[in-house]
Amino acid sequence: MDYKNKKIKGVLKQDYQFFSHGLEGVAAFETSISYIDGKDGILIYRGIPIGELAERSTYEETAYFLIYGSLPTKAELKKFSNDLENHISLDTEDIKWLKDFPVAAHPMDVLNTCVSLMSLSEGGDYEIGRESDLKAGIQIMGKMPSIIAAFDRIRKGKEPIPPDNKLSYAANFLWMLNGEKPKEKEARILDLCLILHAEHGVCASTFATLVTSSTMADVYSSIVSGIGTLKGYLHGGANEQVIRMLERIGAPENVEKYLNEATKKKEKIMGFGHRVYKALDPRARILKNYARDLTGKRDEVLFKTALKIEKFMEKKFGPKGIYPNVDFYSGFVYKALGIPTDMFTSIFAIARSAGWIAHILEYRESSRIFRPRGIYSGPVNVKYIPIKAR
Amino acid sequence: MDYKNKKIKGVLKQDYQFFSHGLEGVAAFETSISYIDGKDGILIYRGIPIGELAERSTYEETAYFLIYGSLPTKAELKKFSNDLENHISLDTEDIKWLKDFPVAAHPMDVLNTCVSLMSLSEGGDYEIGRESDLKAGIQIMGKMPSIIAAFDRIRKGKEPIPPDNKLSYAANFLWMLNGEKPKEKEARILDLCLILHAEHGVCASTFATLVTSSTMADVYSSIVSGIGTLKGYLHGGANEQVIRMLERIGAPENVEKYLNEATKKKEKIMGFGHRVYKALDPRARILKNYARDLTGKRDEVLFKTALKIEKFMEKKFGPKGIYPNVDFYSGFVYKALGIPTDMFTSIFAIARSAGWIAHILEYRESSRIFRPRGIYSGPVNVKYIPIKAR
Repeated sequence: MDYKNKKIKGVLKQDYQFFSHGLEGVAAFETSISYIDGKDGILIYRGIPIGELAERSTYEETAYFLIYGSLPTKAELKKFSNDLENHISLDTEDIKWLKDFPVAAHPMDVLNTCVSLMSLSEGGDYEIGRESDLKAGIQIMGKMPSIIAAFDRIRKGKEPIPPDNKLSYAANFLWMLNGEKPKEKEARILDLCLILHAEHGVCASTFATLVTSSTMADVYSSIVSGIGTLKGYLHGGANEQVIRMLERIGAPENVEKYLNEATKKKEKIMGFGHRVYKALDPRARILKNYARDLTGKRDEVLFKTALKIEKFMEKKFGPKGIYPNVDFYSGFVYKALGIPTDMFTSIFAIARSAGWIAHILEYRESSRIFRPRGIYSGPVNVKYIPIKAR
Repeated sequence: MDYKNKKIKGVLKQDYQFFSHGLEGVAAFETSISYIDGKDGILIYRGIPIGELAERSTYEETAYFLIYGSLPTKAELKKFSNDLENHISLDTEDIKWLKDFPVAAHPMDVLNTCVSLMSLSEGGDYEIGRESDLKAGIQIMGKMPSIIAAFDRIRKGKEPIPPDNKLSYAANFLWMLNGEKPKEKEARILDLCLILHAEHGVCASTFATLVTSSTMADVYSSIVSGIGTLKGYLHGGANEQVIRMLERIGAPENVEKYLNEATKKKEKIMGFGHRVYKALDPRARILKNYARDLTGKRDEVLFKTALKIEKFMEKKFGPKGIYPNVDFYSGFVYKALGIPTDMFTSIFAIARSAGWIAHILEYRESSRIFRPRGIYSGPVNVKYIPIKAR
């Protein structure tokens, strides 16, 4: 074998044109799905500012808009909503799985496992292409809220509640979770949260979704990558961790001590800062207002603690500094809607499924496998020493 | 809400320094795990050429070397092998899951789902860090071969076979799959295949694994991303598709017609070309020799068809052209070992788990979330038109 006679000298010559640890400043593809102007704190979905959609659209409509590229007609929206509804019911097999899961399982792991389970019935027959991709995507979008709601009921010893097809996607989730028809205001607020979380450029979870689909893997595998990536506390997992941090701090008067110690230890302050925004995240602005409106007596101290943290961070880092991101106030809204803390990130995943599907379909059109390089900094010409001689 | 008064004019100003569709030519981090010299067709694991490890090492030893950074002492290797063995047995719960899966499920989807299922018993208690990451990684490595072997037996109506702790990792897999103690030569060849597939720089699946773990997601989620990404036919899925393509072609005399038509339709020729190699992949060279040795009468025509394709491609693209990659001949070896065609990619996944774990642990040391940008090419200043007016 002539590899032995090759000199390894050439090995350190590097084969890249640009180096960026974590890919900051690198553009990896073109997209017309969303744009973030981080300097001015603007986020648009296909040309429409997020605040306008949050105020005037619905999650189903926004999801359609993201996935298909234009606002739906009445007939198109009806068909899309029906397609989602066709999948929202869990079958007995799904419920059997959920009942077999350990009750202590994290809802994000349950979601990931259940989407992966959905792929099993495809066998090897999934033909990569717009038709199969859309079919799988809509099935996943339809089922995600039902999975999470049913798992929460099962772990509490209750029976899952079938969906009510007269309700919207957001209202149906609250119905399946609580077994009570949600008030119009509650359903509307969850709907708004889903719109705000539906898409956000090339965040790590969307990027993972695309890395997976770029090998021509199917939509199930791709979205499973997205869910797993969202779970980390530096990404979607932050909304759960913000509330846990606030609970640890306990009261506004403990904020300064906690944050001084945390920054000394270089610990991450949950819910602050973002690679792209150098201004206030427009979603955080909207959510903060709702959080203030909704937070009742029970969580008043927690909310005041949050405000104190925001002030502390502003004072420490100045007005051009580190702002709260979307995850800092969203938890208050979910808490007020009666959603358990360990399910916050799942709500994010349910919402973001629209963006993931939109990106998969768009990237397929000009797909190239994602294969960056690593800069080799290890040894060369290492001798293999047989185990007897070690 | 003042976002409405913001001008969206600034939106098209791009916030990136370097653009590369698919990230070719971009280095995303430093690594000392492996290096590929694509020009000369050299691959080293931590400084040792792959051919030397393939000839002299074992998969367990190579996996240890990749993960821990140095060749193990006898005691270290024994402990590592024992740790793997402690997980290789499936418990009754695992087997119950596998029996409930549809028999037509693709083994890669089964693998993905089962690794995701493993995460459920962690609940929310997984503390990101070297100890938990290693523990989860070794558990996954240990269980992967057992899952695939058991699923194959179950779908054939047979009972799963428990592992034999006296056997090596590779031999155990063949034993659990076939229910016969493998010949020493067979076990050695599978061992060698696992060594050759254990690591390969920042391929798409390893990259997906890192994108997931970079948000501080756990090792289960990260490896699930890796498995899902490997599945695509532009990556690990190619080894299965090569054999299917050869079966479609049927005989050497059909090669020219098939390939002329395929290239006219710009179809991908499975098992050829690689983003990094501009020379013969050293793994393909080794595997081709074994494929020639092992291929019996039954697959002789298939092998001759493969050789004809290689010649055709060389003639068409010249000696500096498109070479067969690792997936072009590996299938012949697996076929000769009695492994079903739809399980080829799972063998790749089992082997690559070592590289995935090594990269997760290494990247954690200087972790930065992977967040590239997309270049926005969509519309701006789109008006929201209410549905009544559409």
